Amino acid sequence: MKGILIVLSGFSGAGKGTLMKKLMQTYDNYALSISMTTRAPREGETNGREYFFVSREEFEKTIEENGLIEYACYCGNYYGTPKAYVEEQLSAGKDVILEIEIQGALQVKELFPESLLLFVTPPSAEELERRLVGRGTETPEVIKQRMARACEEAQGMEKYEYIVVNDDLEKCVAELHSIVNAARNIPGRNGAFIDKIKEELKTLKEGAE
Amino acid sequence: MKGILIVLSGFSGAGKGTLMKKLMQTYDNYALSISMTTRAPREGETNGREYFFVSREEFEKTIEENGLIEYACYCGNYYGTPKAYVEEQLSAGKDVILEIEIQGALQVKELFPESLLLFVTPPSAEELERRLVGRGTETPEVIKQRMARACEEAQGMEKYEYIVVNDDLEKCVAELHSIVNAARNIPGRNGAFIDKIKEELKTLKEGAE
Repeated sequence: MKGILIVLSGFSGAGKGTLMKKLMQTYDNYALSISMTTRAPREGETNGREYFFVSREEFEKTIEENGLIEYACYCGNYYGTPKAYVEEQLSAGKDVILEIEIQGALQVKELFPESLLLFVTPPSAEELERRLVGRGTETPEVIKQRMARACEEAQGMEKYEYIVVNDDLEKCVAELHSIVNAARNIPGRNGAFIDKIKEELKTLKEGAE
Repeated sequence: MKGILIVLSGFSGAGKGTLMKKLMQTYDNYALSISMTTRAPREGETNGREYFFVSREEFEKTIEENGLIEYACYCGNYYGTPKAYVEEQLSAGKDVILEIEIQGALQVKELFPESLLLFVTPPSAEELERRLVGRGTETPEVIKQRMARACEEAQGMEKYEYIVVNDDLEKCVAELHSIVNAARNIPGRNGAFIDKIKEELKTLKEGAE
């Protein structure tokens, strides 16, 4: 059966990275999509691992060739999801996770109505701030920016299909996995089965008449 | 938190009864709604256990008083779901299961948009027939009627939100439970949390300015 396309959004500091890592370690049905970007690689980032790092020309060529599921411009750089890898993994039955922002999330839902839109949030704003400060890697100015951005992003929370509170990691991973599994049971993903049983019932009924 | 209203439909012979029994035994978050009917009690049935057995006058009075969530007329008898018990259990945080047919299921969804519509089916029509025959309690004529009815009911399968295949009982119970749990994460059931975190983020942002 074809895999599920999972769109994961959430505040910076909500713990999406840790969550996805744990999800991949715990279950083998997931694949992580790797985004394409025009921003320069940071210290320690490897092409094809964190991102596919490309030039602006290459990115725009990919857009023109309809090779992206979604893309957005953010702080002067392009970010997008290459289509080929996602479709290949879905066909292989993998549930593919895209970590993207709301703008892209809504684009994906438009294109793939059966995708699953999940929003990850810490249990409170105070906890979000605590985590950002706790990282120890961000300047107060960056933390302020992140909090302001979270405030904006919160406006779109209702547009997601599921809200996942990341309080306890293990619990949150199990919850995410449950939500994905439940999605396998929607009629839209079971059209072949529904058609088959309808046909069988009709045949049996006609045979009995 | 308020419980979830679960509407369970499915072919006669799909194993809904066994499924609900097992679900109630395994988890303590469920409550079973008891229907009201005008049909006469069968051998071994007790008022208030299988059904609330009432007269046609009482049933119609309950309809007039708006005391039913849904009702339908089937083979000349009324069947309906009394509202008071369901609302009481939902308020107490219980997830209430209604075992009703599609006509009633769609009425419930109209009235309670956040209810969960589940359809239980055996893995195939042959298996359905085998189970009906296997009961040993039904005449060939009744089995034929049931199969014909299943054929009709199958037409409405797509109207349900989730299709649950009852092949292995344990697996099916776990699947049902997963689907119900996933429903706790929809934004519509987390309005208070969403409002709270939005407000907190706004306050923190304004404080930082």
